Amino acid sequence: MRHVLSVLVLNQPGVLSRVAGMFSRRGYNIESLSVGKTEDEEISRMTIVTYADDETLKQIISQLSKIISVITIKELTDDIAVYRELVMIKVKADFIVRAQIVEISNIFRSHIIDVSNQALIIEVTGDSNKIQAIIEMLEPYGILEVVRTGLVALERGNTELKDFTE
Amino acid sequence: MRHVLSVLVLNQPGVLSRVAGMFSRRGYNIESLSVGKTEDEEISRMTIVTYADDETLKQIISQLSKIISVITIKELTDDIAVYRELVMIKVKADFIVRAQIVEISNIFRSHIIDVSNQALIIEVTGDSNKIQAIIEMLEPYGILEVVRTGLVALERGNTELKDFTE
Repeated sequence: MRHVLSVLVLNQPGVLSRVAGMFSRRGYNIESLSVGKTEDEEISRMTIVTYADDETLKQIISQLSKIISVITIKELTDDIAVYRELVMIKVKADFIVRAQIVEISNIFRSHIIDVSNQALIIEVTGDSNKIQAIIEMLEPYGILEVVRTGLVALERGNTELKDFTE
Repeated sequence: MRHVLSVLVLNQPGVLSRVAGMFSRRGYNIESLSVGKTEDEEISRMTIVTYADDETLKQIISQLSKIISVITIKELTDDIAVYRELVMIKVKADFIVRAQIVEISNIFRSHIIDVSNQALIIEVTGDSNKIQAIIEMLEPYGILEVVRTGLVALERGNTELKDFTE
């Protein structure tokens, strides 16, 4: 089962290495990992997506909590969180099919951010299902390159960083 | 100086740990790192942002190239690449200021993706300058939580994955 962990860490050298190393050494799966600054310069937020059964998830959370620099770990679920991923897709597009691809891009409310004679780059954000759907629609035209950020998640409502760090 | 490295790696356990470990052991700065699948299931793409002088950058590229599972490393610069980051910002918003915040969101072509009595979550994509600008505009209202994906980048034009992997 897919689990999304939102992990607050101190913004210190080596923290990413310690977290990734723990997953690797113990053979836990990382589907995606994304790390960025928060509103507090000293704290970063990692969003880790992992496929694990309940027992393994418990172990992962327990091991994470032992890592120096990890402040809090919270599992985010569909009912309490919003998820998004950003993907850029470079797709083959000569003048014959360009209009068709622009139409697909519009349907998915995505944006064309680069155009050349033979290709377009599309920027799209959404949950995993939406991203999968647009990639499948574009595949017949020839996908040249894809870059994905991995999933990020935020709890709905008005919880705030200091609820977890103070 | 800021450098953006686009690194293709084999999608194998431990590769993130080896890359993060190399940066950490050698004391190289990681401003952000983002990793996700590509159009080829066996290959992932990492986008690493680092602040380094030219000599250090050379060392980083040389050390990266020695890591098992690293296929290619390419520095992407403004003239040849497009950059994007996805950020979700939870901002305090009661009914008195909600309209003001919606207006700011519209100006930045961002989207409101969650609303509660006391807060809004805004999804915004763009380059680092745009993200910085909207955060500064929202700060006076009270930012509760922020999650950022880190930068991703893709080369303009019609280069493709297999140009680098075959």
